[in-house]
Amino acid sequence: MSYTAPIKDMLFVMKELAGLEDIATLPGFEDANLDTAQAVLEESAKLCGEVLAPLNVEGDRNPSSWKDGVVTATPGFKDAFRQFAEGGWQGVQHPVDYEGQGLPKLIATACIEMLNASNLSFALCPLLTDGAIEALLTAGSEEQKQIYVPKLISGEWTGTMNLTEPQAGSDLALVRTRAEPQGDGSFKLFGTKIFITWGEHDMAKNIAHLVLARTPDAPEGVKGISLFIVPKFLVNEDGSLGERNDVHCVSIEHKLGIKASPTAVLQFGDHGGAIGHLIGEENRGLEYMFIMMNAARFAVGMQGVGVSDRAYQKAVAYAKDRVQSRPVDGSAKQSVAIIQHPDVRRMLSTMRGLTEASRALAYVAAAHCDIAHRHPDEAKRAGHQAIYEYLVPIVKGWSTELSIDVTSLGVQVHGGMGFIEETGAAQYYRDARILPIYEGTTAIQANDLIGRKTVRDGGKVAKSLLAGVAETIGALGAQQGAAFDSMKTYLTQGHRSLSAAVDFVVTNTKGDPNAVFAGSVPYLKLAGVVLGGWQMARALLVAAEKRAEDPSFYGAKIATAQFYAEHVLPLASAFEASIVSAKGGESVLALSEDQF
Amino acid sequence: MSYTAPIKDMLFVMKELAGLEDIATLPGFEDANLDTAQAVLEESAKLCGEVLAPLNVEGDRNPSSWKDGVVTATPGFKDAFRQFAEGGWQGVQHPVDYEGQGLPKLIATACIEMLNASNLSFALCPLLTDGAIEALLTAGSEEQKQIYVPKLISGEWTGTMNLTEPQAGSDLALVRTRAEPQGDGSFKLFGTKIFITWGEHDMAKNIAHLVLARTPDAPEGVKGISLFIVPKFLVNEDGSLGERNDVHCVSIEHKLGIKASPTAVLQFGDHGGAIGHLIGEENRGLEYMFIMMNAARFAVGMQGVGVSDRAYQKAVAYAKDRVQSRPVDGSAKQSVAIIQHPDVRRMLSTMRGLTEASRALAYVAAAHCDIAHRHPDEAKRAGHQAIYEYLVPIVKGWSTELSIDVTSLGVQVHGGMGFIEETGAAQYYRDARILPIYEGTTAIQANDLIGRKTVRDGGKVAKSLLAGVAETIGALGAQQGAAFDSMKTYLTQGHRSLSAAVDFVVTNTKGDPNAVFAGSVPYLKLAGVVLGGWQMARALLVAAEKRAEDPSFYGAKIATAQFYAEHVLPLASAFEASIVSAKGGESVLALSEDQF
Repeated sequence: MSYTAPIKDMLFVMKELAGLEDIATLPGFEDANLDTAQAVLEESAKLCGEVLAPLNVEGDRNPSSWKDGVVTATPGFKDAFRQFAEGGWQGVQHPVDYEGQGLPKLIATACIEMLNASNLSFALCPLLTDGAIEALLTAGSEEQKQIYVPKLISGEWTGTMNLTEPQAGSDLALVRTRAEPQGDGSFKLFGTKIFITWGEHDMAKNIAHLVLARTPDAPEGVKGISLFIVPKFLVNEDGSLGERNDVHCVSIEHKLGIKASPTAVLQFGDHGGAIGHLIGEENRGLEYMFIMMNAARFAVGMQGVGVSDRAYQKAVAYAKDRVQSRPVDGSAKQSVAIIQHPDVRRMLSTMRGLTEASRALAYVAAAHCDIAHRHPDEAKRAGHQAIYEYLVPIVKGWSTELSIDVTSLGVQVHGGMGFIEETGAAQYYRDARILPIYEGTTAIQANDLIGRKTVRDGGKVAKSLLAGVAETIGALGAQQGAAFDSMKTYLTQGHRSLSAAVDFVVTNTKGDPNAVFAGSVPYLKLAGVVLGGWQMARALLVAAEKRAEDPSFYGAKIATAQFYAEHVLPLASAFEASIVSAKGGESVLALSEDQF
Repeated sequence: MSYTAPIKDMLFVMKELAGLEDIATLPGFEDANLDTAQAVLEESAKLCGEVLAPLNVEGDRNPSSWKDGVVTATPGFKDAFRQFAEGGWQGVQHPVDYEGQGLPKLIATACIEMLNASNLSFALCPLLTDGAIEALLTAGSEEQKQIYVPKLISGEWTGTMNLTEPQAGSDLALVRTRAEPQGDGSFKLFGTKIFITWGEHDMAKNIAHLVLARTPDAPEGVKGISLFIVPKFLVNEDGSLGERNDVHCVSIEHKLGIKASPTAVLQFGDHGGAIGHLIGEENRGLEYMFIMMNAARFAVGMQGVGVSDRAYQKAVAYAKDRVQSRPVDGSAKQSVAIIQHPDVRRMLSTMRGLTEASRALAYVAAAHCDIAHRHPDEAKRAGHQAIYEYLVPIVKGWSTELSIDVTSLGVQVHGGMGFIEETGAAQYYRDARILPIYEGTTAIQANDLIGRKTVRDGGKVAKSLLAGVAETIGALGAQQGAAFDSMKTYLTQGHRSLSAAVDFVVTNTKGDPNAVFAGSVPYLKLAGVVLGGWQMARALLVAAEKRAEDPSFYGAKIATAQFYAEHVLPLASAFEASIVSAKGGESVLALSEDQF
């Protein structure tokens, strides 16, 4: 059940694909060179491999539990969280001014991948706290920042996001929680929030709930939602803890996976009102929440990468160990380890290729985010921000959708043993299933990709990325060999398919929205497959050049790129057919409701 | 959590695609006309919908349990099994001579689909008993048949298949269980069998274990395996029960799904030897077991169809009920039921299309099996048998692989609620995960499809099926409209891809087996996608002709066929690329073991 962080691949991606050395030239990131990255990753790998990974199965067998409003985390989690906090891991990417480490998101992303690979349930607590920190830094008052952010970064307190209500899931316009002004600047909140991850627990002294609610005269719909901070324990002016606030966990859910992570139903104001404070301006809550959500969505994408890698590592270990059947080519008379069988190879290579591609795409996105924040040139910043924002729904949607396939293949590699819970492969399959749902389902990501990220700028960002793909195809053209041949062929086809889809989306969204949205998720997946393939092609070019330096590592990069070209990229034309050629989604919408 | 058997679609497939009326002209099947089929299906639907479907969730929450060697089935199962047995449902397809109903496999297949849709765990017990009956009818002595088969058909006793041992899963050459002759014609068996489905339980008075074992002088490998019948209670000459035999359940597994179905570890001979009798001839056990396995594999394919349909029905019900978000086309100012949203439509249509296609292909296969058994012309029988045998691994492998996608989409349609176990959607996702593993993993099915079913006859059967596809494409050519246009385009492409793959397999398996087996599962899936699409095309032709008779039903058939053409069939060219164009599987096999 162990986990070994793939530091070598992470550093390869950071250096060769995401441009860490360029990031380290940005103001404030001067120390963030490859040596720093390596040192940070090695420390992170220790904590994740030694402390968090072994607790993962414990969390599945002995989930966090609820009793009389009190939630007790899985045994071992509280101590692990203390080690996590003391190591400063919550603050990797947060500002030095608030006692963070101020490192680039690119480096933090690798740490976040490790955290999730080792223990998805555990990682969710810091993930939500990161979101709360982001929101406070963006929209909080100076006082709020001073009180909350250092405590959140130190791990003394944790944060949550309270969006969902029973009638308001994907559709936040339906939020009904009320916030009544008390005349002293504070509000009293009343309502029920569900699906609140780590909404109650015993790992930290206080919990800062960020809560969407409506003030009395707020307009209907999403433009009448405000954001409040509601601490579990009220906070005195000196930052010490006061009375217990009127927010209570009335139950936690019994879930398919990530069982150690308590999913709380929170009741606000059943005993007189939960005291909260407005963050930023009234009625701009959704806007602020989107800041948290973008960070959280990217991080959930990393959960997909992390659990995929974990499942891959486990499947490889089993395949090397399990002896069964003679080779199909008759090369041995005896049964061999199943990793020798072509179909097991195909499964492992699929798992590996998808994991590497989704990792590379996410790290590249993180680097764009870093440049967007730190580059001295405003136009540059805006350009990189736009690319980052285009990539976020893809990192979230594609990496998590493929984590289901990868963890499912992980079970399959184990054969009958995979279905036995003691083996552990099934946990990843169960855990992964939430990833394409929370922080916005894949359809919600795809709507975002179409509406805000593709149509709004007339496909400009999408086409700039496609130009990058074309440039890489050009570079491939100068090279010889089977890997390059396959990559050229299928990346060219992928480029054509994604271009056609972008044109289709840009041209038709306004006039025939149903036709476009019928292919929304296929468009998102197509973008993931092609842009992920682009990173594999870039890796191939680097690996071919450096092969002699480290034949095993770079040789594996080349083979994996070739595999991805031949087994993943061909899907692009199938997606294109479904999106573009399918006559405006006619068949998707043909049935009346009662024909289903 | 209810289940409504799709009798109308089942009868449509039986009549229009599988040729029930022709089956009813075969000797012995004279009564098996459409009226009979309808009456049988309606009765079966009652039992499945009213008795078995409600027990499905109970089995998940309260699995069968083990204590001191005794396994107690989930509460309610014993009584349900009594009703199942009394209704004569175990005997639907078995010979009248042994108190079966002697109906065609085609009709039995619909009953088996219902049984599995309503309760996968429950259905496994009759599924294994069917296998035991088949094996006894084929290879048992007259005495064995007389003693065992009527009791198995009546449900007084049940049957099991004992193949797997800890070191022998896919690789039966490694079976080590010993059978020592006692001089009186009986044997004493010693060994451990694992993963024995319904290997011990309290629903019937006796259990007939069919066990693979080796006699003392048997040759090594698969040619030294014999088949034995080892009853839980010894059977006296008059058929009454004697002493408890020395076969004991030492534990049952803690599994990801199908929790009501006890998966037993059986210990043979720990107290002096388990008394068994040889079935058929020594050392021919694997051959006989293959008879059971072919029947069981087909039935597991039906498990895939069944659980897919169940997940589809549940997702549709939720999507009609759950109100969330306004339509993307602005056609309503209020939030609408999520079934109105294009992406939910796409998910439901994918679930529906895959379920209908896999159902149709399986029923068509069952009809070939019926003709193979009953046609007066020997050459005809052989021809249909060959087609049936080609289709079995596809029905097994493809229907079960797609059931994972379908049940996963079922969770996704439910959003966050899908991840909560109380909702029930997650159970199908967990239950389905075993289907591509047991009774031979998808890779094992694909090896069978390549070796025995495609290469051995030089692709003759595959090409005869492709000729059928071409004929249907011709018939589509005469028709107008978007559904026909799409189906023509993508079925033609699919035909081309499958033809290319068959040629590749036939040409290269001998000379470059690794290259072919690297694409074995893609070949199986390609065959499923295209041959399933063929059935959808045939359904489209019928539906277009009859549309006026029942516009809602046939209109839905047309739309579903179009959807399948546009969203599923395009995958064919991606599979072709992976199988044929990928330069002999080079990238699959490029990495050395330690590069993983």
